[in-house]
Amino acid sequence: MWVECIPNFSEGTDKKILEHLFITASERPGVRVLGLEGDVDHNRAVMTLAGDGEAVLQAVLAAATVAVREIDLTRQTGTHPRLGSLDVVPFVPLGSTPMAYAVDLAERFGKAVGEDLGVPVYLYEHAASRPERKNLADVRRGQFEGLAARMRVDPPDFGPGAPHPTAGAMAVGARFPLIAFNVFLTTDDLAIARAVARAVRGSSGGLVGVKALAMDTVHRGRVQVSLNLVDYPTTPLPTAIEMVRREAGRFGVAIAETELVGLLPAQALMDSLRYYLQLSHLEANQVVELALAGSDYIPANQSSLHFGGHGHSEEGV
Amino acid sequence: MWVECIPNFSEGTDKKILEHLFITASERPGVRVLGLEGDVDHNRAVMTLAGDGEAVLQAVLAAATVAVREIDLTRQTGTHPRLGSLDVVPFVPLGSTPMAYAVDLAERFGKAVGEDLGVPVYLYEHAASRPERKNLADVRRGQFEGLAARMRVDPPDFGPGAPHPTAGAMAVGARFPLIAFNVFLTTDDLAIARAVARAVRGSSGGLVGVKALAMDTVHRGRVQVSLNLVDYPTTPLPTAIEMVRREAGRFGVAIAETELVGLLPAQALMDSLRYYLQLSHLEANQVVELALAGSDYIPANQSSLHFGGHGHSEEGV
Repeated sequence: MWVECIPNFSEGTDKKILEHLFITASERPGVRVLGLEGDVDHNRAVMTLAGDGEAVLQAVLAAATVAVREIDLTRQTGTHPRLGSLDVVPFVPLGSTPMAYAVDLAERFGKAVGEDLGVPVYLYEHAASRPERKNLADVRRGQFEGLAARMRVDPPDFGPGAPHPTAGAMAVGARFPLIAFNVFLTTDDLAIARAVARAVRGSSGGLVGVKALAMDTVHRGRVQVSLNLVDYPTTPLPTAIEMVRREAGRFGVAIAETELVGLLPAQALMDSLRYYLQLSHLEANQVVELALAGSDYIPANQSSLHFGGHGHSEEGV
Repeated sequence: MWVECIPNFSEGTDKKILEHLFITASERPGVRVLGLEGDVDHNRAVMTLAGDGEAVLQAVLAAATVAVREIDLTRQTGTHPRLGSLDVVPFVPLGSTPMAYAVDLAERFGKAVGEDLGVPVYLYEHAASRPERKNLADVRRGQFEGLAARMRVDPPDFGPGAPHPTAGAMAVGARFPLIAFNVFLTTDDLAIARAVARAVRGSSGGLVGVKALAMDTVHRGRVQVSLNLVDYPTTPLPTAIEMVRREAGRFGVAIAETELVGLLPAQALMDSLRYYLQLSHLEANQVVELALAGSDYIPANQSSLHFGGHGHSEEGV
């Protein structure tokens, strides 16, 4: 049962801690750490790892132990909202793994963190125990500083009824893959970035499954719209980016360039190519390296035998 | 040493023969048959297999034995030019495999076919023994019917100096991955397809590394331009397709849809996405399934540790 996990740590600058986290997770058998990206402004690092569910659970638990011991939230500052040292832990099903399996992992991980590390855990998204905890932003409201007061009226799903003194609390969830994407516009006018974000995001009447935020920093004379696609099969990447392009165009502004944050599922890559090239279809078994990988984490991967096509041939033209 | 091989058989309709070819190649250890596509009009089938070079060589040799025995060129007809029962055998290096390794495989495969199966072999592309045999179209000139006369003045690289009575001759080569692509236009006017193909292909002043041919059949009221990209890192997919779009637009015609023939390297998929989404960069280790596969056939695949980014975060927005 293949899963991906993307723990978000509230430390973006201390290389010693980040390397310790990386090594701790990498050492666990059956797991691949696919990346660790630290962000200075946010003072936050995002790790991506994948493998069999059990192995991933153990690897993230080992990294959580390091984070709780080494990241002190009473001294941490940064522009990004956070509840704890290891702030957010989403489990994501890959390939044919069902969401129920990722939910089960999240519950078992949350229980272990609460009981063994003494850190209170709130379950969110598909693992949420109540509707009002589904949205991560709601779970994180009040942040680390507001935790003690909030926990008196809003007890966690696992662990003690008060915050861990230095590690705070943790949001643990199960969700579908998320695509995070930054779009840089050819302007330094923050009002335009805000207008574009407002038009594109679902919460203010834009695209379903799209979260968008105008960043309040200007980088090399360019404003930035950050996009999260939380339901990419329903609202694919090209739909979002082309809407950004059109809305920016209303102000005479274009897209200068874009940037992928973290990882992308192969299916999103193939869906995007189908859109732009007007391909009638494209499947994993038509991409050499995906066809070769041929494992449980590749969706619908089979050798193809097609007889009876018309008028095309590889070595033909 | 990972390689791909794409043998083209001169049989597109007889399911018994095609299944025999498929099973023969599939049974060999260390090889994956990624596809077999038969084409009725061309009376031709294209197999794609990959694995370690030695294993691939043995599997294609086994399939060649079947093809020489079961496909009779004296009775074969079809719209596609061909020299023999197993017409073309290109070896393609994957990932970090050097071209020289694919050339060596082609030479050893050709020698075995010539000596063991008694079929004359012409080496082409990177394996060519002379400049005038580099181009496959030149090697195939005169076809099966013209072989006996041609071989008297143009002896093969391996095997007998006369055609095999039923299996003809074989072109064996080494080349970079080829992308084959059909574009359907919103018109039934063949003259437009011809004008577009002429404008786009390198041989008549268009794009370097692009071969284009207007198919002389109309399918559901749509003409078709077939594209082969023989040097896709230099001339990528979007460059070719956008030039087709522009040239068709001169006649008030649009692209109705496109169709990928055979397989596509992951790098071409990623390069295309970078083009359309204006991504500053995109690498194999940013695609979950490619990062997980993490084998020799994935180019430049490493776990990424990035510290010091600014203003982005996966669970941020």
